[in-house]
Amino acid sequence: MYISKKEIQLLYADTDMMGVMYHANYLKWFELGRTQLIEDIGFSYVAMEEKGYFAPVYDVYCVYKKPVRYGDTAFVKTWVDSNDGLKTVYGYKIVNEEDMIYAEGTTTHIVVKKDNFRPVQFKKSFPEWFQKYEEIKK
Amino acid sequence: MYISKKEIQLLYADTDMMGVMYHANYLKWFELGRTQLIEDIGFSYVAMEEKGYFAPVYDVYCVYKKPVRYGDTAFVKTWVDSNDGLKTVYGYKIVNEEDMIYAEGTTTHIVVKKDNFRPVQFKKSFPEWFQKYEEIKK
Amino acid sequence: MYISKKEIQLLYADTDMMGVMYHANYLKWFELGRTQLIEDIGFSYVAMEEKGYFAPVYDVYCVYKKPVRYGDTAFVKTWVDSNDGLKTVYGYKIVNEEDMIYAEGTTTHIVVKKDNFRPVQFKKSFPEWFQKYEEIKK
Amino acid sequence: MYISKKEIQLLYADTDMMGVMYHANYLKWFELGRTQLIEDIGFSYVAMEEKGYFAPVYDVYCVYKKPVRYGDTAFVKTWVDSNDGLKTVYGYKIVNEEDMIYAEGTTTHIVVKKDNFRPVQFKKSFPEWFQKYEEIKK
Repeated sequence: MYISKKEIQLLYADTDMMGVMYHANYLKWFELGRTQLIEDIGFSYVAMEEKGYFAPVYDVYCVYKKPVRYGDTAFVKTWVDSNDGLKTVYGYKIVNEEDMIYAEGTTTHIVVKKDNFRPVQFKKSFPEWFQKYEEIKK
Repeated sequence: MYISKKEIQLLYADTDMMGVMYHANYLKWFELGRTQLIEDIGFSYVAMEEKGYFAPVYDVYCVYKKPVRYGDTAFVKTWVDSNDGLKTVYGYKIVNEEDMIYAEGTTTHIVVKKDNFRPVQFKKSFPEWFQKYEEIKK
Repeated sequence: MYISKKEIQLLYADTDMMGVMYHANYLKWFELGRTQLIEDIGFSYVAMEEKGYFAPVYDVYCVYKKPVRYGDTAFVKTWVDSNDGLKTVYGYKIVNEEDMIYAEGTTTHIVVKKDNFRPVQFKKSFPEWFQKYEEIKK
Repeated sequence: MYISKKEIQLLYADTDMMGVMYHANYLKWFELGRTQLIEDIGFSYVAMEEKGYFAPVYDVYCVYKKPVRYGDTAFVKTWVDSNDGLKTVYGYKIVNEEDMIYAEGTTTHIVVKKDNFRPVQFKKSFPEWFQKYEEIKK
């Protein structure tokens, strides 16, 4: 199992009047982690789009344990949770430098054609990428 | 059971290069719906903060059925899904004018003290508000 | 001179830890105002894109007089400040219900081809729209 | 004259349906650059807030030369443009790895008391910081 780790640029823009990071921004950090995982193993989401596909989010779950504050140091850890050929589930943890968990969650993705948003099989359209996920998944 | 309904201002800012609304923005629309529900039944989140409390999100789930596009008309429908005195779960549907579902989800909230983020009992700190939720919940 | 007026949905998401709306969000409200102005006079930015063009921002200026807070009521007022056939300058005021000014600014836009971002003449590509701007401008 | 340089985390979240980064996001990158400049010279915006002050944006200007795209590499370069004891003007360039300019701009900041947003003199409230700006400014 491979776990990617990427430091997050925490912006003042992402805080809210509770004095902490607004909860929807964690989903952007999941995106950051996912992109980093893909890069780490030698693939590219940009290349997927250039080939004519998108990988939209089908669903998302996030549980918030401890608020991230402006001035904190935070990382997103990302792995492939499951991968059935059609849907890929990524797992995430938002942690600090001592690996204390701020939040954790998952996103499920499908692959669709750019022009009509029709789902295709990830396994068939990107066989090498799918195979790599089989090797590194949980 | 009471269901609040509020039209969403869909911004170009909220689109992404897939040509649809970026998925994290749906969580902002959940916030919009939640605020509207609270207003509809005569309470105020601003007043809760002025009294010394926050109601942060404990967890969030969202499933995306059909992408919302710029130029679409979209509404957020919100209700109280459950309410146990400590945690309140809100349910949401993002729909168009014909009630077709774009996305649906839930958020769980706790009430905390502003100064230390320590959880308090919603039922004890806001008894009338809690009672109202008992009446209108699913 | 025609001035469009549109109420802004103020979100908790758009606040920051200063307890006020984060300054970059005012640019989204300028977008909201601009879109409303275009709709008010019978045109459509979506239709412009469908015809093969974008109208990106060339420059933006904003001066902040008084912070907008969550719970405030705010409107964006928008007009055509100047329009020379190539560049269109929109003027904006963010105001409350008594017309007190929170912020004001301008954005300059050009029209470009979607496929290569090459500028075209607004006057030539959208002659009726250009003509309407001549009538309503400051 | 000191110029700070910081790489920007470009997110898919920040793109729009033009296929490029939405213009308001450049203001978040200015914030990133400003924070980095302050860190580089040994001060801290977090510490300023802890001392009871905010440094809100008074005005902002940005001109967009070439769109930043997802997958690009971009940096924000930041310097002190002027500093009169009351107002500080920061200058910014958004550039790629070959120093090609995507956008450039300025923000003007004042220092205010946290509790009432009343302006104070930066020179008097933060004399060492002010002095450092005198040394490094343009």
